[in-house]
Amino acid sequence: MSKATIKQVAGEAGVSTATVSRVLNDSGYVSPEVKERVFGVIARLNYQPSAIARSLKQDKTFMIGVIVPDIANPYFMGISRGIEDVVGPEGFQLMFCSAGEAPDKEARLLQLLHEKRVDAIVLATSGGNVANINGLLDNGQRMVLIDRRLEDEDSAIQGDSGKEASLPKLDLVAEDNVQSAYELTKALLDEGHVRIGAVNGPTRVSTGRDRLEGVLRAMKERGVEDRLLLYSGDFSAEGGVRAVRQFLNEAEKPTAIVSLNNQMSLGVLLELVRSGLRIPADMAVASFGEVEAGRLLKEPGLYYVDQHPYEMGLKAGELLLRLIRGEDDAHSPAGHIFRHEVKRIP
Amino acid sequence: MSKATIKQVAGEAGVSTATVSRVLNDSGYVSPEVKERVFGVIARLNYQPSAIARSLKQDKTFMIGVIVPDIANPYFMGISRGIEDVVGPEGFQLMFCSAGEAPDKEARLLQLLHEKRVDAIVLATSGGNVANINGLLDNGQRMVLIDRRLEDEDSAIQGDSGKEASLPKLDLVAEDNVQSAYELTKALLDEGHVRIGAVNGPTRVSTGRDRLEGVLRAMKERGVEDRLLLYSGDFSAEGGVRAVRQFLNEAEKPTAIVSLNNQMSLGVLLELVRSGLRIPADMAVASFGEVEAGRLLKEPGLYYVDQHPYEMGLKAGELLLRLIRGEDDAHSPAGHIFRHEVKRIP
Repeated sequence: MSKATIKQVAGEAGVSTATVSRVLNDSGYVSPEVKERVFGVIARLNYQPSAIARSLKQDKTFMIGVIVPDIANPYFMGISRGIEDVVGPEGFQLMFCSAGEAPDKEARLLQLLHEKRVDAIVLATSGGNVANINGLLDNGQRMVLIDRRLEDEDSAIQGDSGKEASLPKLDLVAEDNVQSAYELTKALLDEGHVRIGAVNGPTRVSTGRDRLEGVLRAMKERGVEDRLLLYSGDFSAEGGVRAVRQFLNEAEKPTAIVSLNNQMSLGVLLELVRSGLRIPADMAVASFGEVEAGRLLKEPGLYYVDQHPYEMGLKAGELLLRLIRGEDDAHSPAGHIFRHEVKRIP
Repeated sequence: MSKATIKQVAGEAGVSTATVSRVLNDSGYVSPEVKERVFGVIARLNYQPSAIARSLKQDKTFMIGVIVPDIANPYFMGISRGIEDVVGPEGFQLMFCSAGEAPDKEARLLQLLHEKRVDAIVLATSGGNVANINGLLDNGQRMVLIDRRLEDEDSAIQGDSGKEASLPKLDLVAEDNVQSAYELTKALLDEGHVRIGAVNGPTRVSTGRDRLEGVLRAMKERGVEDRLLLYSGDFSAEGGVRAVRQFLNEAEKPTAIVSLNNQMSLGVLLELVRSGLRIPADMAVASFGEVEAGRLLKEPGLYYVDQHPYEMGLKAGELLLRLIRGEDDAHSPAGHIFRHEVKRIP
């Protein structure tokens, strides 16, 4: 016999699926007669109520909150799909919030998700919230970090007793940003470029700082760090557009651009094409993260770090399930660092 | 004097911001002494607690749930930014859920957000949930529809008393999909194309059905509807890729493709470029919705419906605020239909 569905239960009991749901969740008014009838049918059909209903018994909400700095970035959505493919079959629903790279907004979202008693929070931090996070962890909030570390700089915020807030120990799924940015820059240097424009993200967050460090390391290794042009973007396509405009106004224009996230890279490509420049003949481009649209370019040759956000999401999903189930009491949080290769669009 | 912040309150009271937050939200343990001290400082500094704290008094959660079929689609994120720019300054936070074009998943998400007592739900439906939605509305859930209508077909589902579930009256912010798809197809016909491949979305949802209707209307008007090739995509880039592969295997290949959403259009463009075809010389393309990357194409000439999701979001945000505040008791829900023009990438 196939598994009973909520529709079958509703049909047999002569009520709507919404009513069955209300009975299961004990929410909204349902008359005692109807309740009894519904429970009778549930028992007869051996209906297995959904995760939401189960949560009542298990003191779980089966809800996982995901806070990312930019919900429109395909990279974070790739991670999210990976998480969902692991936790979804176990009955968990994801709720996404976008902090817009704003620490204040992130603070409010953290508090909100905690109040809604999500079973866990997945955080790609916009920075600046170590004290708040410590407070939530003290209250038993489970949390996994993705993409970005929590940073020491935040510890300037004072804790309860006047002690400095210390960095909490949390599972982290991230990339080796320094190494990949180093290799990406080296690809340009190996082609003879030395006048290079770098489009960087906010150095408030670890990905911004680490990627810049990788670029600087490669430039210094060749002794050409004084030839570097820097533009502080904000991990947005608009940042990439503005960077190109500034670089093209330089007395000595760069011959190559290294752009340190996929959204900024899309802006860089669009603005270069709009300016009538050929890529890579007039301007070589290297992107931290693939820009799907890069394959539409007239000529091949775009360098990119081949990120695997989906695989990172699968890992984060596993960690979440272990954390929520309290498996492995001796579990000590650790960093799971993916090392991604530099490739070139053929 | 500038407005007091939670950090100032925490500093003056000698506690963490998390503790101030706990006091304001009455969540987690805080000793009576500390509570008194915090409230004293709040009074002295005339600190205005945040929306989250205010919600305790006003029986609001200041949380708005947004359910979309595809969270990775820039179109829905454009709408969301518009909503956020209206409701954010009023203290509301958005929580996003992705139904993945799956009615069952949407049903679970609707129930979950309702249980979490969100002040309103914004829904771009994946179809098939009229009965569930009626149930939530009966329980006082506020709701605004975006992009997609609720459909009569769903009314086959039986209501409580055996009556057919009727379509609820809700505010709707959407586009004139029939008209824009008609004009988009006409642009190709006017160039002499008659063998046209159409990549359509699921006809389970109003946008899928309406856009197909617009295409058919244009083809019939010219008496060439028998020359139409149809591929049922699923509003995903992969759908667009598969459509191109099928079209190119036809005995009589199309000379033009009309793709009925932006994600499918990206797939169409990528696969055409991969196949070595020039756009529009070898294959003309018309897209419902702009593909930002379309500007990277070797040659200009891509037709597109110039959607304005951000403006649609602003409108939805206004409607939400009116609904939540209970302004205008005589408010009768209405459709707000945006008519978007067909343009061409220069």
